[in-house]
Amino acid sequence: MTAPLFLRACRGETTERAPLWLMRQAGRYLPEYRQVRSGVSFLELCKTPKLAAEVTLQPIRRFGFDAAILFSDLLVPLEAMGLGVEFTDEGPRLPAPVRTAADLGRISPFDPAARTPFVMETIEAVTAALGPETPVIGFAGAPFTVATYAVEGKTSKTFSETKRLFYQRPDDAHRLLSLIGEATRDYLLAQIQAGAAAVQLFDSWVGVLSAEDFETFALPPTVALVSALRATGVPVIYFANGAASILDRVARVGADVYGLDWRLPIDEGRARLGGARAVQGNLDPAVLLGPPAEIERRARDIVRRGDKRGHIFNLGHGITPDVPIESVTALVAAVRSA
Amino acid sequence: MTAPLFLRACRGETTERAPLWLMRQAGRYLPEYRQVRSGVSFLELCKTPKLAAEVTLQPIRRFGFDAAILFSDLLVPLEAMGLGVEFTDEGPRLPAPVRTAADLGRISPFDPAARTPFVMETIEAVTAALGPETPVIGFAGAPFTVATYAVEGKTSKTFSETKRLFYQRPDDAHRLLSLIGEATRDYLLAQIQAGAAAVQLFDSWVGVLSAEDFETFALPPTVALVSALRATGVPVIYFANGAASILDRVARVGADVYGLDWRLPIDEGRARLGGARAVQGNLDPAVLLGPPAEIERRARDIVRRGDKRGHIFNLGHGITPDVPIESVTALVAAVRSA
Repeated sequence: MTAPLFLRACRGETTERAPLWLMRQAGRYLPEYRQVRSGVSFLELCKTPKLAAEVTLQPIRRFGFDAAILFSDLLVPLEAMGLGVEFTDEGPRLPAPVRTAADLGRISPFDPAARTPFVMETIEAVTAALGPETPVIGFAGAPFTVATYAVEGKTSKTFSETKRLFYQRPDDAHRLLSLIGEATRDYLLAQIQAGAAAVQLFDSWVGVLSAEDFETFALPPTVALVSALRATGVPVIYFANGAASILDRVARVGADVYGLDWRLPIDEGRARLGGARAVQGNLDPAVLLGPPAEIERRARDIVRRGDKRGHIFNLGHGITPDVPIESVTALVAAVRSA
Repeated sequence: MTAPLFLRACRGETTERAPLWLMRQAGRYLPEYRQVRSGVSFLELCKTPKLAAEVTLQPIRRFGFDAAILFSDLLVPLEAMGLGVEFTDEGPRLPAPVRTAADLGRISPFDPAARTPFVMETIEAVTAALGPETPVIGFAGAPFTVATYAVEGKTSKTFSETKRLFYQRPDDAHRLLSLIGEATRDYLLAQIQAGAAAVQLFDSWVGVLSAEDFETFALPPTVALVSALRATGVPVIYFANGAASILDRVARVGADVYGLDWRLPIDEGRARLGGARAVQGNLDPAVLLGPPAEIERRARDIVRRGDKRGHIFNLGHGITPDVPIESVTALVAAVRSA
């Protein structure tokens, strides 16, 4: 049996067409998602395997995407590590963020089976429903991005507290990042064991770092994490959001696939990564607010630049709630026929 | 008489040391600024030449920076163009943003002497106080950045409305951008006539654009604007915040000096600009939250990379209110002695 399209592209193979999935494809732009979400809180949805599996499957049913991605949140492992997490209308909040050396004592690696069984149950339910044709992607935040939530206690604008920690107490910063890296490793290994056929690390905020800080703080725990995950044979996708200016450094992460945001044309991004075997991306999600002809033109351009060789079509960031369904339909048709 | 250090660096000359000023140097990190600001609203401060000149001069008196920058706001010309602007605790708000073709009829170029006399009076007061030794920098937002405020009506996260306009009605988008570009030209020419020895264009949000959208929308009105300003003989600084990934395109703006954010080492940034004659930057302002030794180490590294050849030392973004005065003192000493 031939491996699924998505996995072949992850391995850098030339494919008959570019496989396609969208970051945040299980989300508020879908009426069936809003329907499920209307009855439960966001965290309840993440923690109820039956519902999380249902919303994970919704976009596959509607659009036949080439991969499903676990419905969950970047902050689930932080909570499992011992930090309180609340989801408010203004985003996530940690009432007691990690700022001092003593705070570090409050967090620890965790047993995923004991603390986050709902994640593995969701993956099992989705893989059972989809069969081997449509792989399920597990995910977590990359160590730096998860650390920013631990330290800032929220989505930050300037990341002052995180950087203050880096510059004032670099040893504590390294310890925090390595603790998070180890917990994330166990968490993702458990997802792989539950059936995830690939895993993606979201480094959503890494674009706020200088090249030096990326190399000093973000890179080492990410390299260790990627290496441990790749030892399972499952492909690892690293999405360094906003870091298109330092792709030469990003490539040192050692991932199988690099997710790219929309700033650079994807062929230029691949070249700056040193000729990465596989890349994923990279349509600006805002293009989906435009007319179908423009969506088609831009999607075809990306497919052409991706060369159907180790290229997974995706957006350059998560799909936004204001995107019309018809735009996604136009996108899917354009990528499939390009 | 030798030209001031700052202007010699703007022209790409080799200088005995790197001239130094800080974006947002007249700001809340200074107790004397907070003192003035405590008695007036932000907009009142911008519009009262005596007070605006006073806060412009404060950081020069305290630190002896090599250039002063007009105290004002990016939205002043938008208001003069006919749009209502309010400053709230959550940032600027335009109650009636520009979304439709009809909305475009509500804005027009303006006579700076009639609509923004306070700006020219502030520049005149500052140049009179400083004499020729310390140049005064005039400034405005670059057309794309000003357009985002006109269209979004606030500081946006996703810039959906602006991009929707670009993709759905590109002709209206070009018209808006060119209207703003023309108004900004007249506004900055008036600042130059009032005594500004250099002007800086802040493209604060341009980093949200793909390379294609930068070339299609942001670049043409900016090229026209820079060209008209350079015809006066006054150097033009273009600061493309967050656009380090597309510096090859940014260089096509045709500025004398390119401001760089902190993502890339400044020598790499200069190389990617195609070997720009002059660059400005680029310390991460968050480094000023660190200890003096770290501030000194990083500042010296930037001076070394800047090569004292067409290099103006600055931060890679505005200084934040939480920066201790002692950090600025340490920075100034490090740059002067490097």
